[in-house]
Amino acid sequence: MTHPTTTLALALREGGFAKAPTPQVPHAMAPHLELREVMLPPLGPGQVLIAVTLSPVNPSDLFFVQGGYGQPRVQGQAAGFEGVGRVIASNGAERLVGRRVSFLGTGTGAWAKHAVADAALCIPLDDAVADVDGAALIVNPLTAVALVERARQGGNAFVLNAAGSQLGRLMLGLARDEGLSPIAVIRRPDDAEALRALGAAEVLVTSAPDFHAQAGAAIKALKPRVLLDAVGDQATADLFFAMPAGAAWVSYGKMSDDAPSLNQMGQFIFMAKTIEGFWLSRWLPAAPADRQAAVVRQVQTRFASGQWATRVAAELSLDQAIDGILPAYATSSGKVMIRP
Amino acid sequence: MTHPTTTLALALREGGFAKAPTPQVPHAMAPHLELREVMLPPLGPGQVLIAVTLSPVNPSDLFFVQGGYGQPRVQGQAAGFEGVGRVIASNGAERLVGRRVSFLGTGTGAWAKHAVADAALCIPLDDAVADVDGAALIVNPLTAVALVERARQGGNAFVLNAAGSQLGRLMLGLARDEGLSPIAVIRRPDDAEALRALGAAEVLVTSAPDFHAQAGAAIKALKPRVLLDAVGDQATADLFFAMPAGAAWVSYGKMSDDAPSLNQMGQFIFMAKTIEGFWLSRWLPAAPADRQAAVVRQVQTRFASGQWATRVAAELSLDQAIDGILPAYATSSGKVMIRP
Repeated sequence: MTHPTTTLALALREGGFAKAPTPQVPHAMAPHLELREVMLPPLGPGQVLIAVTLSPVNPSDLFFVQGGYGQPRVQGQAAGFEGVGRVIASNGAERLVGRRVSFLGTGTGAWAKHAVADAALCIPLDDAVADVDGAALIVNPLTAVALVERARQGGNAFVLNAAGSQLGRLMLGLARDEGLSPIAVIRRPDDAEALRALGAAEVLVTSAPDFHAQAGAAIKALKPRVLLDAVGDQATADLFFAMPAGAAWVSYGKMSDDAPSLNQMGQFIFMAKTIEGFWLSRWLPAAPADRQAAVVRQVQTRFASGQWATRVAAELSLDQAIDGILPAYATSSGKVMIRP
Repeated sequence: MTHPTTTLALALREGGFAKAPTPQVPHAMAPHLELREVMLPPLGPGQVLIAVTLSPVNPSDLFFVQGGYGQPRVQGQAAGFEGVGRVIASNGAERLVGRRVSFLGTGTGAWAKHAVADAALCIPLDDAVADVDGAALIVNPLTAVALVERARQGGNAFVLNAAGSQLGRLMLGLARDEGLSPIAVIRRPDDAEALRALGAAEVLVTSAPDFHAQAGAAIKALKPRVLLDAVGDQATADLFFAMPAGAAWVSYGKMSDDAPSLNQMGQFIFMAKTIEGFWLSRWLPAAPADRQAAVVRQVQTRFASGQWATRVAAELSLDQAIDGILPAYATSSGKVMIRP
């Protein structure tokens, strides 16, 4: 059996990092990506070749294609951080050949008909896990587990913004099932009831005229000491400074182009507040192997049982993607999926 | 022998906290302090009565009298966080009676002819320690030891701003003697040579036209991973974001009224940077007793041997203080002292 040495991919037009800060969402995809045949590198030891079924568009992908993410682009290589597909060849990981797996695009990107991935980061899937869930099984779900674990270190209650995002919803369900009280912060009231049903103890709407009063009351009642932040705007800073002594601001995303002001620096000194960041690419290698395995089992079980579900906004073929991703991304908080 | 039940003091006119953020330095002292006789409370168990010799004006005192510090004011009580004096009475700490001690104004404030203090926080002084050093033996020196210890956790090099302050100079000497490479940041070039002589590996002058280039070169060469910050302005934030991955911004003071912008939030995520605060009042009770004792010995030895020295800007009597503190404070980075 012979295997392809090239594949059709959404390839990066540029390499390295952007020279200036990038917006959350690019103005267009065409300056950054082109659809073309790219070379597939030979499989290194421990690598597998995957026929890709489905791959999501994550916020981190949109930063990455612009050169604004924490790792450099390789010009001419496919974009796409994760996906689901079937292993069709391996170099030293024969147990995976023929298996359906969730994978990280560690060898080549996932927005392509074929991808090279590290077997150690492939997750063989139970039949009960749907392709849409398998496609987005790693980046968001593992982040959700790690962040809820971080939140629990601060006590029972925590604040999360962008709570209507796919990742926010995963965290709400997980937190509820672990007996925690998440305070969900969203921009518009539409999602409030859905988020309460998922597990939010309180829902705060930043566009509401009484947002600050509502936030003050919720913080006073529940005393959250961790703020899980995917936004990074002034409203986030204001929430942080309204939280009790010992509060930690954990930044894991940057959906706003604001530069928030630290207008109460004294709180670091007198109230022992802190700011830190979270990055799955740092957390994952640092987590002990048995902890990683337990998290992967937990994630798969939650999707298989329906406790978690991936909401899909749109499904695009490779030749629809460059024009179609941004309009679909803008209209829904569900995942935009690419089906190569 | 009878002891006084009242004493002449610089008493706080207001109680509690300020309603609005306070400036680093008040516009005048008269709205906050008045010279008058105040009651001395009876000594509680483990307390001593001290005839005060000398007490410094620390930056934290200036925040405190305005109600901008991390603990509330008690109306009618003397201000003043620390001083030197002779113990003239005790309730259960007879070993200290007649001794010259450095003390914290934990019972009543130190800007008074007499003060009540906790014996556990009094440091009996060697004869070799001068009164000016004994007066400022606790707040700055213990902070210096704790902060240099924190800096060392990040490696050999660190950045400190306001490096020309009394506390900055203590840290430079201590760091040099411990083999560390401090990068001193100051506003004006006047002190540069003196700070190099004290122990600065590099001196950066924020008013210099090539400040950013100099800072970049020093950071590239020495790779500092801790920023000890007493200023909290935008230049501090810029330095922090120019530092390497893993850098920690440790805020222990707020000499600027700026609200710095976090214009590179992604560094928390991708570069594992952090912001935290330091407060001696939190560090001291948390430090193990043997560590506290070792630090106190180290501090006293450094002053007795002349490795450290307190520079005095002016010495004021109680009746000169209300009008005299601010003009003297503005003209020198040495300590303004009150001699009751």
